[in-house]
Amino acid sequence: MQYFKKPSISLHILGRILQIESALLLCPLIVALIYRESKSNILIFLALIFLTGVIGFCLARRSIEGEKLYPRDGLLIVALSWILLSFFGSLPFYLSGQIPSFLDAIFETVSGFTTTGSTILEDVTVLDHSLLFWRSLTHLIGGMGVLVLTLAIVPGGNSAAIHLMKAEVPGPSFGKLVAKMRTTARLLYAIYLVMTAVLLLILCLLGMPIFDAFIHAFGAAGTGGFSNMPNSVAAYNSPAITYALAIGMLAFGVNFNLYYLVLIGQFRRALKSEELRAYLAIYLTAVGLIFLNLIAYYKQLGTAFRESFFTVASIMTTTGFSSADFAEWPLFSHVILLILMFIGGSAGSTAGGLKVSRVLIMGKIARREMRLSRQPHRVISVRYDKKALSHQERAVVVNYFIVYILLFILLLLVVALNAPSYDVAFSAVAATFNNIGPGLSIIGPSGSYAGFSALSKIALTISMLFGRLEIFPLLYLFTAWRKS
Amino acid sequence: MQYFKKPSISLHILGRILQIESALLLCPLIVALIYRESKSNILIFLALIFLTGVIGFCLARRSIEGEKLYPRDGLLIVALSWILLSFFGSLPFYLSGQIPSFLDAIFETVSGFTTTGSTILEDVTVLDHSLLFWRSLTHLIGGMGVLVLTLAIVPGGNSAAIHLMKAEVPGPSFGKLVAKMRTTARLLYAIYLVMTAVLLLILCLLGMPIFDAFIHAFGAAGTGGFSNMPNSVAAYNSPAITYALAIGMLAFGVNFNLYYLVLIGQFRRALKSEELRAYLAIYLTAVGLIFLNLIAYYKQLGTAFRESFFTVASIMTTTGFSSADFAEWPLFSHVILLILMFIGGSAGSTAGGLKVSRVLIMGKIARREMRLSRQPHRVISVRYDKKALSHQERAVVVNYFIVYILLFILLLLVVALNAPSYDVAFSAVAATFNNIGPGLSIIGPSGSYAGFSALSKIALTISMLFGRLEIFPLLYLFTAWRKS
Repeated sequence: MQYFKKPSISLHILGRILQIESALLLCPLIVALIYRESKSNILIFLALIFLTGVIGFCLARRSIEGEKLYPRDGLLIVALSWILLSFFGSLPFYLSGQIPSFLDAIFETVSGFTTTGSTILEDVTVLDHSLLFWRSLTHLIGGMGVLVLTLAIVPGGNSAAIHLMKAEVPGPSFGKLVAKMRTTARLLYAIYLVMTAVLLLILCLLGMPIFDAFIHAFGAAGTGGFSNMPNSVAAYNSPAITYALAIGMLAFGVNFNLYYLVLIGQFRRALKSEELRAYLAIYLTAVGLIFLNLIAYYKQLGTAFRESFFTVASIMTTTGFSSADFAEWPLFSHVILLILMFIGGSAGSTAGGLKVSRVLIMGKIARREMRLSRQPHRVISVRYDKKALSHQERAVVVNYFIVYILLFILLLLVVALNAPSYDVAFSAVAATFNNIGPGLSIIGPSGSYAGFSALSKIALTISMLFGRLEIFPLLYLFTAWRKS
Repeated sequence: MQYFKKPSISLHILGRILQIESALLLCPLIVALIYRESKSNILIFLALIFLTGVIGFCLARRSIEGEKLYPRDGLLIVALSWILLSFFGSLPFYLSGQIPSFLDAIFETVSGFTTTGSTILEDVTVLDHSLLFWRSLTHLIGGMGVLVLTLAIVPGGNSAAIHLMKAEVPGPSFGKLVAKMRTTARLLYAIYLVMTAVLLLILCLLGMPIFDAFIHAFGAAGTGGFSNMPNSVAAYNSPAITYALAIGMLAFGVNFNLYYLVLIGQFRRALKSEELRAYLAIYLTAVGLIFLNLIAYYKQLGTAFRESFFTVASIMTTTGFSSADFAEWPLFSHVILLILMFIGGSAGSTAGGLKVSRVLIMGKIARREMRLSRQPHRVISVRYDKKALSHQERAVVVNYFIVYILLFILLLLVVALNAPSYDVAFSAVAATFNNIGPGLSIIGPSGSYAGFSALSKIALTISMLFGRLEIFPLLYLFTAWRKS
C-alpha cells in the first residue's frame, strides 16, 4: 500500500500549510499582548508558532520544482491539510484549559475552519480575547480555503495547483479567473480581504466595539457565525448593525468569480449569472414567506421584516449568526429555514450547503423529466448559463446529490443513537453537514452542542469536514488504503 | 385546448373503470345483507351500484376496436381513473353519515385505494361491517391496480394496454410477463388473488375471526394497513398471527414477476434477482438494528425480536399495520423506520416508497461516483441484474428521485403551515407520500389524522395519490391544460 503516489510533493504542501498556520498564530499572540493576558497564554502561542513552524520547515524542505500532482493526491492533500490544521489549531483552546476536553477543542476548531460556527461552549464569554480572536480567525481562513491561501503566497508548484483548488473551492465546477493558478488564488484572496475590511469598517462606524467588529466581520466573511456574545448579533440591539451584517453575509454568499467580472468591467455579464439570479430569487422568496409567517408572531411589521431579512441571509449563506432565537419561531418558518440549510449559498463563495447552482440544475432536470413523461421521444436539453449541459455534466451534479443524501442518512443514524429527539438529531446533522452552526430546539441559537455524547460529537465533527470539503476528499482519505 | 388526444378511447376506459367499481360495490352490499345492516346502508349501496353502472355504460358505449393510445393519454387516464374511483368510492362513507365530513370521506377512500392506510377515524369501530369491508376492499383493488384489473377482465383494447400498465404498476421499469398484455394482467391478478386467499386461510386457521381475517388479508395483500381494530394487529395478542402477517406482508412486497418466474419453473432465476436480495438484506439489517435497540426497551428478547420483525416488515412494505405503538420507541429505531419508509418495497409489487430497485441503483451510482473521484478517467459502468445500465437508464432513476424530493418539500411546506411539530409534519408527508399509513407522535399507530386542518388533509390526500401513481400521471393532470 502506498498512500501517496508522489509523497515528496504531497509532504511539501502539507509542510507549507503548517508554516502558514505558524504565521497565522501570530495574530492571537498579538491580541494576547494587547489585552495583557496571562503568561501561560503567551507561552502557548509562542510554543505553537515554533512547533508548527519547525515541523512545517522539515516537511517542506525538499524542493518540488517541476513535479506534477495526481488528482488522487490532490484529494488526499486537501483532506490531510484540514485535519492537520484543525489538530494544531485546537491546541490553544485545550492547552490553555479554557476548553478542558480535547474532543470539544477539536469540535470547536473544526467548526471554525469549516465555517460552521456550531459551538460546544455553553457560555462563550469564558474565552480570553486571544482565543476568541483565534476562533474567529479560523472562519476567515477556512472560508476562502487554506490551500488557496498557500497557493497565493507560496512560490512554485503551479502545475499542482489546479487539483488543489478544485478540491478546496466549493461548487460543481471550478472556473479559473486567469490562466495562472497563482494569480487566480491571489485575486480571490485580495477581493475577499478587501470585502472583509470594508465590512469591518462599516461595523465600527455603526458603533460596534473594534474587537467585536473583527469577530463579526470574520464570521460574516467566512460565513462561519462564531460570535463573542452569548446571544450573537441580538446583543447589539441595533437595526443598522443587523441590516449591515445581513447584507454583508449575502455578499459573501455570492460566487467570487462574479466580483472578478465586476472588477474587470464586465458588470453586465456578472448580472446575467443564472446562479446569482436564482440565489437572490430564493432569498427574497424565503424572506417574504417567513415575514408573512412572523407577522402574527412579532405583531410588529418592522421587527418581523428585519428578523426574516437577517435570519434568511444568515441561514442561506450558512453563516449562522442570530438576531433572534429562531428556534422559537413557528413550524412553517422552521421548515423554510431547514430547506435553506440544504440549498446553501453560491458555488465559489465561502458558503456551504448543496449550493444554489446544483439545486438550480437539479430543478431544471426535474422540469425536463416532467416534460419527457408526456413526450417521451422529444429531445429536451438542460441549459445553464445559456449552454446546454452534457449528460456527464448533469450526472456530476445529480450523483453528488445522491452521495450527499446517503452520507446524511448515515450521519443521522449515528447521531440518533444518543440524541433526545428527532428535530435535534435532524437539525444537528443538517446544521453541521451544511456548515450552518445552530440547529433547532436545544441546539438553537441560544443553546449549544455541549450536551451531545462523545460519539455524536465525533460524527458531527466529521460531518462538518465532509460538508466543507464537499465529501470526496475526506471519503477518499477513509478508503485510499484499499488500493494503492 | 384539447385535454385528450383521443377522447373516445379515453372515455371508454374511464367508463369501464366505473363499471368495475359498480361490480365491486356488490361485495359490501352482500356484507350488509349478511350482517342485517340498516335499510339505508343497503339502499346506498344499491343506488351507487346503479349510478356507477349507468355512467360507466354511457361512457363505454362506443366501440374502440383498433384505436391506439398516446402515452400522454395513458397518464391522464390513470390519473383520472383514480380520482373518479375515489370520488364514487367515498360516497358510501359520506352518505351513510358514518364519516360526516366529505373531505374526510375522500381522504379515507384515497388512503384505501392508494394502499396508504392513514385514517381520519379516531375510533374505527364506529363503522358498520359493510363499510369496514368496502374500506379494506379498496386496498385489495388499489394494490395491484384498477387498470390492471380492467385489462384483465374487459375484452378489447390490447394496443392501449402497455401505456396504462406502465403508468399504474410501480417501479422504474415495467416488464411484460408474456407478449399479450391482457394475459400479463390476468396472470398478475391470478397470482395476487391466490396469495391473498392463502393468507386469508392461514389467518382463519390461526384463530382470527373470519371477518377480521378478510380485513387483514386485504390490508396485507395491498400493503395498505387498514384494520378493524383500534390497536391494529396488537388486538389479537397472538405471536403466531403476528409472524404470519409479517411474512405475508413481506411476500406482497416482492416483485410479482418473480412469482411468475417461479410458476414457470425458473426458480433459480428468481432467486438471482438483485432487487430481491437487496430487499431481504435491507429487511434483515433493519430488523437486527432495531432488535438491538429494543432489547433495553422491552427487556425481553422474544418480544423485542417479534416487534422488530413485524414492524420492519410492516413499514418497509409500506403496509402500516402495527403490533406495538412504535411511536413510543427510541429515536434510533424511529430514524431507521423513517429511512425504510422512503426505501419502500420492490418494484412491481403492491408496496409504495421509492422502491428497492431505485435505491439500489442510486447506491451503485454513488459508489461509482466515489471511484471516479479518485480515477477521473476510468470508465466504470453501473451493473444491475448483470447488465450495464445506459446513462439514460441511470438518469431515469435519478431524475425520478429529484422530482420526488422537490414534491416532498412542497408538500412538507404546505403541511407545516398548520402542523403542531416538525416530526408530525415530516412523518405525515413521509407516511402518505410513501403510502405507509401511520406516522410518528400524534399520528402514530394509536393516533389518527383527524386533527389536521382541511388544507393539510387536501395536501396529504394529493400526497397519497402522487405516491401511489409515482408522481407523473397526476403531475401531468395538473399541467396538461398548458399545451394541447
